[in-house]
Order: sequence, then structure tokens, then C-alpha cells
Amino acid sequence: MTLQVAVCGPRECTDVEQARARTVGRLLAEAGAVVLTGGGAGVMAAASAGAREAGGLAVGVLPGARTEANPDLSVALATHLGEARNAVLVASADVVVVVGGSWGTLSEVALARRRGTPVVTLGGWQVRDAAGRELPDAPLAAATPEQAVEAALAAVRGG
Amino acid sequence: MTLQVAVCGPRECTDVEQARARTVGRLLAEAGAVVLTGGGAGVMAAASAGAREAGGLAVGVLPGARTEANPDLSVALATHLGEARNAVLVASADVVVVVGGSWGTLSEVALARRRGTPVVTLGGWQVRDAAGRELPDAPLAAATPEQAVEAALAAVRGG
Amino acid sequence: MTLQVAVCGPRECTDVEQARARTVGRLLAEAGAVVLTGGGAGVMAAASAGAREAGGLAVGVLPGARTEANPDLSVALATHLGEARNAVLVASADVVVVVGGSWGTLSEVALARRRGTPVVTLGGWQVRDAAGRELPDAPLAAATPEQAVEAALAAVRGG
Amino acid sequence: MTLQVAVCGPRECTDVEQARARTVGRLLAEAGAVVLTGGGAGVMAAASAGAREAGGLAVGVLPGARTEANPDLSVALATHLGEARNAVLVASADVVVVVGGSWGTLSEVALARRRGTPVVTLGGWQVRDAAGRELPDAPLAAATPEQAVEAALAAVRGG
Repeated sequence: MTLQVAVCGPRECTDVEQARARTVGRLLAEAGAVVLTGGGAGVMAAASAGAREAGGLAVGVLPGARTEANPDLSVALATHLGEARNAVLVASADVVVVVGGSWGTLSEVALARRRGTPVVTLGGWQVRDAAGRELPDAPLAAATPEQAVEAALAAVRGG
Repeated sequence: MTLQVAVCGPRECTDVEQARARTVGRLLAEAGAVVLTGGGAGVMAAASAGAREAGGLAVGVLPGARTEANPDLSVALATHLGEARNAVLVASADVVVVVGGSWGTLSEVALARRRGTPVVTLGGWQVRDAAGRELPDAPLAAATPEQAVEAALAAVRGG
Repeated sequence: MTLQVAVCGPRECTDVEQARARTVGRLLAEAGAVVLTGGGAGVMAAASAGAREAGGLAVGVLPGARTEANPDLSVALATHLGEARNAVLVASADVVVVVGGSWGTLSEVALARRRGTPVVTLGGWQVRDAAGRELPDAPLAAATPEQAVEAALAAVRGG
Repeated sequence: MTLQVAVCGPRECTDVEQARARTVGRLLAEAGAVVLTGGGAGVMAAASAGAREAGGLAVGVLPGARTEANPDLSVALATHLGEARNAVLVASADVVVVVGGSWGTLSEVALARRRGTPVVTLGGWQVRDAAGRELPDAPLAAATPEQAVEAALAAVRGG
């Protein structure tokens, strides 16, 4: 079964996040993975562009119609499920890489961890328990796109 | 339109969380609200029991079949959507009250805030930005069930 | 477990269909069933009105926001799932009563029969196999609202 | 935007239907279309195999986990939405080609027609109104895989 990796992050993002997402998408495609995103702008568009750049497949799982799809998608699923599509996106991924933070992105982190799917974050939001302590099954934090992709591939391969 | 309030929290919870959820459910029903939950055990069952105790309506939005429904539900929606039902649950609520923390619960907090729906937490997990700062649109924290319900009703009534 | 019956039918319907749906909703509520509909206008609104008239519960499973809800709903689920909500609606029902025909209604008939859920039709569309023959597991046809409700209750009770 | 065509049909199908679905998948891929299916066995697997045979993309929109995916998929969406995935599948298609009949397949026909998406059938079930008449917006009937693909492409191109 082909490796499928979701790259999640906000529609409105910084230039640094956009550059990171593009590199993450490119490195994942070079490693032979299909890159799944929410199909929109910002981090999603950058990761798709990176995947296409490397000749890989970029699949968008959109909340609404295909008219909202970013231009680099090989396939655009027009779920018309609204934000419920976040659950479909992460359930289809072997591992999730997060670039940046937003409420939508956090829902994807939480839905992935709920399923036991590994999550690697690159500068995203932090989650603590009620006492402010780190959670035992928190996402893995990476410092660079290279580290994030390496950690993601290792998590899937059980490495 | 009748007020609809979602009470979210983990299936596996402490006795304190269970007691708090029951009081939250009861107070909401006494205030005339329909109490929506994920329909399962733990916090969800306790909030439903509280609502029924006060003669109110308890609606469960289940991830799977009705056989999983807790016994105090007036209506059980068997969505068969898996965790995507979390989005359906919070999208149907005017405000969300959270008792305790889990990844599933956090996804509901995030999906609600993504929609701009107010969230009141009673001992749940905390979310910080990448730098460890509090978020400007974070959920409201309450210390008691009474405070939580009061804050929830105020948030809806714009009070 | 309380009996839950979905009443399905088109938004745009005839006066006869509206009157039939209202009677179906009323008779179901009198029999103690929760009446589920898609929450919109036409057949859905009439069935909800009938259920409320008899002091019963009318639950709407809406494709979008609660602002689209008909006025007689006790509870309005704002799924934001678009037409995927048809699957949620019929999966929550012990039996489905259909009044009139439309493509949306037919999808509900098909999704219910796919699950093995009994379907009773009152003047709806007909489905034939490729050779034009009736299907062995086709919906039951009723001639009056009274017959439809009787057949629906019998189907659930195995009578 | 790349053309996306859904090929729908039953899991349990005849040898003739399987051969037809394979040819439909192959011809669609040769025409440059992405072939979407429900990702399972029978007609779905055959259409995917045909698409891969021609070097095209075969995308499966599964009701559950990726372990149920047929072996010829380029991408497998594990929606975990149950039969609600039928709505996601057809909403993502520019046109739907149906090979054979079943309740699940009929729900896809109905959901597509509900959206106004063109549907071409190759031996599927028939739908009539309450009086037994053909519907004005019924699917187009084709007699061979070649005719079905030609009609599907013409419907999309407005030809």
C-alpha cells in the first residue's frame, strides 16, 4: 500500500510556513508518499505545490466544491462535508505533518491522535493537560522540514 | 429557536468529572436548553442523565450504531460517521461546555472555535500558541458547573 | 429504546402529499415514535407539524445551518454535511416512511434498503431491475397514511 | 481542472459487468480522466484495474479503513463515513458511469441526479415515477462501454 501523508496547516500562514510546507511536500513526494491536504490555500497549497514539483501526487480533500481547489492538485475530492472533512483527511493518512497552527489545524491534530495516528509538528500550537503538563501522547516536535519528514517516515516505518 | 448546548468530554472520566457533567446537564435543562452529547459513556452519559433528571431533552449524536447509546437519551442519532460526528455535534450547538480532556474532546473544542462557537471549559486541556502564549480566542475557563452554565448562557445571549 | 421513524419526501410537494405527511407524523407521534426528517420544507415540515400537533418529538437532520430549520422541530441537527446527511437520517431510523418522490428522497430509500432498514412508500417513485421487473426487497407500498404507519410499525415489531 | 469520473456499481457483480467496468475504466483513463470509485470489490475493483492498465489514476473513496481497498488504487481515501461516503464520491465527479445495479449504486445515481450531475447507465436499475412513467431527468442509458464513455465525455463537454 502506498504511503499516504497528510500535511495540515492554516489557510492564512506566514512566508516561512509556506516555504516549510513546500519543502515538506517535496520531500514527502521524493520519498514516494502521496501528499494529502485539505486542498485550500496557504500551507495546503504550498505542500501540494512541493509534491507536484517532485513529480508526486497531491490530493486535496476539500470542505466544499472543487472550485475552491488549489491549482497543484492531482485529484480534488469535493466532500461538501464542511469541517467534518478534517476527519476524512486524517483518517486517510498513515502519519500527519503539521506546519503552523489554527483551530482547524488543531482539530486535525486531535482527530489524528484520537485514532492513534502519529503527528509531527513544525511550529504548531501546543496542547497541555488541565495542570499545564505535557501529554504523554503529544505530537512529535520537529525543528526543520527535513527533520519533520524524517520523523514522519520513521514513525510510519516503526523506526 | 430552542437553545441547544453540547456537553463534551471523555468516555473515560473521573468521578468528579462525572458529577460535574451531571450538574451541567441538569442546570442546562432547567434553563430550557436541549442537551446534545456524543451519546456515549462517561461525561456524555452523565450530562444526559442530568438533563433527563430535570425533565429536559438529551440528544446523542453517536459515531456508530444506536446500540452504543447511553440509556438517558431522548433521541439517538446513529450517524455511522465515526469521529466526523464530532463536527456534526458542535455545528448543532449554540455553545459548547467541556468537562475534562481527551483528544476527541479537544477536536470538538477546536471544531467549535473554528466555527466561532463559544466554548466554556471545566477542567479541560489547555491550548497555547507555538511560543507558549495563551490564544486570544481561547475557550472560557469556569471553576464550577454553576459558573460554566452561567458563562455558557451569557455567551449565547451576548450577556 | 424509543422507536425512531424517518419520514422522507420532497421539499416541493403537492397539497395531497403535505396532508398525508402531516397525518403520518401525527399518527407516528401518537404511537410514541420520535419523528425524524430532513428538517426542511414540504413533506419534512408537514411531518414535523403533525408530530408536534400530537405532542411528540420532531427531530430535523439538516444539510446545513439551523436557520433552514422548519418551525416545528423540537431539535435541529445542523450537520453541514450537505446531502451526506441523508445517510445519517436513515441510519438513525428503525423504519422509513416515504411520501412522494424526488432524487433526494430516492437516495434515502436506497440508503435505507442498503442497510436492510424497512421502507414504506406512499405514492413515491418506483424502482425496477435492468429487465423492468420488481425487486425482491423493494419498499412496501401503502395506499393511505393510516396503512403506511400501520405497515411501518408492523415492520419494526416484526409483525 | 482534470476530469474526474466516478464509476459506480455493486461489489457483487456478474462477469459481464466486471468486464464492462474494466473497459470503462480503461477508456476513461485513456481519455485523461481520473477514475473515482467506492474503492471496494466487484465493479469498483474492475474499473480501478482498467484505469491502472491504461496508466491512469484510480482513486478509491472507501466507507471504512484502507485495509478494504482494492489493489489497483493510486490513492485510497479511508473516509470512515459508512454509506455517507457515497455522497462524497459522486460530489467529486464531473459525471457518473454506472455498471449494474444495487441499492448502494442506486443511492449514488440518486445523489448525483440530486446535484444535477450527469449519469450514464450500463445495464443498471430503472427508476419510474409513481405512475410508472419515465422521469424527465433520468440517467442516460448506454448499450456498450464505448457508448457509455462517449456519452459521459459528451455530457461533461456539453457535447
